[in-house]
Amino acid sequence: MASLKPYSLTLLIFTVLLFSASANAKQHSTLPLRFGQNGQFKILQVADMHYADGKTTPCLDVFPDQLATCSDLNTTAFLERVIQAEKPDLVVFTGDNIFAADSTDAAKSLDAAFAPVVRWGIPWAAVLGNHDQESALSREGVMQHIVQMEGTVSQFNPTARGEEMDGYGNYNVEVMGADGSRVHNKSLLNLYFLDSGDYSIVPSVSYYDWIKPSQLLWFQQTSTKLQREYKSELDGQREAAPGLVYFHIPLPEYASLDSSNYTGVKQEAGISSADVNSGFFATLVEAGDVKAVFTGHDHLNDFCGDVSGIQLCYAGGFGYHAYGKAGWPRRARVVLASLKKSKEEGGWGMLESIKTWKRLDDEHLSTIHVQTLWTNTT
Amino acid sequence: MASLKPYSLTLLIFTVLLFSASANAKQHSTLPLRFGQNGQFKILQVADMHYADGKTTPCLDVFPDQLATCSDLNTTAFLERVIQAEKPDLVVFTGDNIFAADSTDAAKSLDAAFAPVVRWGIPWAAVLGNHDQESALSREGVMQHIVQMEGTVSQFNPTARGEEMDGYGNYNVEVMGADGSRVHNKSLLNLYFLDSGDYSIVPSVSYYDWIKPSQLLWFQQTSTKLQREYKSELDGQREAAPGLVYFHIPLPEYASLDSSNYTGVKQEAGISSADVNSGFFATLVEAGDVKAVFTGHDHLNDFCGDVSGIQLCYAGGFGYHAYGKAGWPRRARVVLASLKKSKEEGGWGMLESIKTWKRLDDEHLSTIHVQTLWTNTT
Repeated sequence: MASLKPYSLTLLIFTVLLFSASANAKQHSTLPLRFGQNGQFKILQVADMHYADGKTTPCLDVFPDQLATCSDLNTTAFLERVIQAEKPDLVVFTGDNIFAADSTDAAKSLDAAFAPVVRWGIPWAAVLGNHDQESALSREGVMQHIVQMEGTVSQFNPTARGEEMDGYGNYNVEVMGADGSRVHNKSLLNLYFLDSGDYSIVPSVSYYDWIKPSQLLWFQQTSTKLQREYKSELDGQREAAPGLVYFHIPLPEYASLDSSNYTGVKQEAGISSADVNSGFFATLVEAGDVKAVFTGHDHLNDFCGDVSGIQLCYAGGFGYHAYGKAGWPRRARVVLASLKKSKEEGGWGMLESIKTWKRLDDEHLSTIHVQTLWTNTT
Repeated sequence: MASLKPYSLTLLIFTVLLFSASANAKQHSTLPLRFGQNGQFKILQVADMHYADGKTTPCLDVFPDQLATCSDLNTTAFLERVIQAEKPDLVVFTGDNIFAADSTDAAKSLDAAFAPVVRWGIPWAAVLGNHDQESALSREGVMQHIVQMEGTVSQFNPTARGEEMDGYGNYNVEVMGADGSRVHNKSLLNLYFLDSGDYSIVPSVSYYDWIKPSQLLWFQQTSTKLQREYKSELDGQREAAPGLVYFHIPLPEYASLDSSNYTGVKQEAGISSADVNSGFFATLVEAGDVKAVFTGHDHLNDFCGDVSGIQLCYAGGFGYHAYGKAGWPRRARVVLASLKKSKEEGGWGMLESIKTWKRLDDEHLSTIHVQTLWTNTT
């Protein structure tokens, strides 16, 4: 692997200069999200940045000759590179955005970690991991900070729901049809974001937390509502609009995949899901609209595989202050949703396919593991 | 194995004669359930009666020489025997109470199946299995019939809950302290009953149904409320009052047990739980009050074993028109909850232990596998 410095940091400096000259030039309204005039919507998933104090925060698991010059700024530089290369319509940060235990000021770390998307004016969403709250800022505080940041579509929690909700940052975002098309006011792709918690507080269960009944019910009710709207309005589609779900800790069902049925790698000894199965996968299967789940948490796993018709995907670790593997480049996952061409007004119909690939932080920002997650068969 | 006839049917005839002479002599008010003056509360679990049309309905899996004289009446006779022997304070029927596909009239089958407990005036509770609705009566209809029967503590569904609830027959019943004791108005043992459904209607998931998010949330909220009351009223106990849960289809977590850590047998190839894990076990673990789960469904499994501090138990098959194994007697599970002796008014304190054993429909109504499920360590 070539040294990180030449291409990563040079690009960072270039980009910062560029933005100094045209501040806010790319700012635009973040909601509603909608498919572009090219009939596409592209999502960049960034998992486990583990951002701390910036240039004084060292890298983990890089080659010895990289240590002296490597810091959180390499994470920022990678984010800049991949944004420039992919030009996503939305960036989703799936938790452990900061490694708060090493952060002097969590709010500053969050601001620095998300700075590239704010500068680019790209809509962005974030959920919490298990490390985001390990400072003076609680999970609630971290999410409160995130939702008031510029350009984010993140929400603290659903406001319509009277009952108490477990976690912080459970929300959904609709992606509407292209401007000028017949379906410009119809959500053609539904994004769900959940807080998968941090650590178990139940004595008989070790390690990681899990998605709770209040969240299952919120998801189920939201999915039901979205499906009803999709099927009843404009053309009355028979199938539900596809959904994608983003959160931090993988589901226990990830462990049912192996190299015979996934694309990518599993380099960790196990899947670091909760030690109990809290039923979110069953809830997804029953709801029927979700085509893929995207998590982080296990930095050295980056696969996608189908379980009962739902693709279970990792992004692979992104951040340089996160554990990783020297010689195995940090990476990000891209998802591209494409609409069907239509002869009607606007030229685009319903969703046709969802594809994914990964981008590596190597010399050529390599694209690997292009695969189709879902195709419209109706 | 001796023929069934001599001891089962003779006893049945005797019992029916006895009741003809003293009809309703044992009737008493069913609620509230409470511990007896002996400081005990005993529950008899009857799983998978598979009752159909009575004497014209043949037995399955008995020895050839028993076939001619064996029918649903043998199921009734066994129920009479075990009631007489154990004198339970509550009988819980955990589904597949009737095998409705073979029933001419589901309401009549239900009446006949539950007749012994009604005659004895013993409070009883029932939940639905996957075979109860295979006739003109829907699951809703079967549960509606059950809740209006004499002596039952079964409920259709919680009435306080505005939101829709999955299934029919989700309810909880409190068991209060002994009459005259300081805690006669405090629930010392909480019983939860759920509808675990029948068959999956999700195309990608085969076979059996599962407990849904609305039920998880109902259980969680009910448990929270009961724990709050228990800890705040009278003496402010530190721990929650123990709970027991009854439903039909075993949880996927039953499969994590083997002969090294259970008491009883596993004679079926697998655990016939749903093919997805809908999270009820995780919900139980998080709630913390439930000490044991009791299901049926797999007639040839009758074990109890501890997973993360919760005993997962089968009753073993009870009914003669249900599949079974010739020479392996039909059986029932007994649970005995005992209070601590106290020097205070009434002589009884909080719960001290929960024990269980099984009764076999053999010559001596053998008691086997006596084990302690839970002991109060506070």
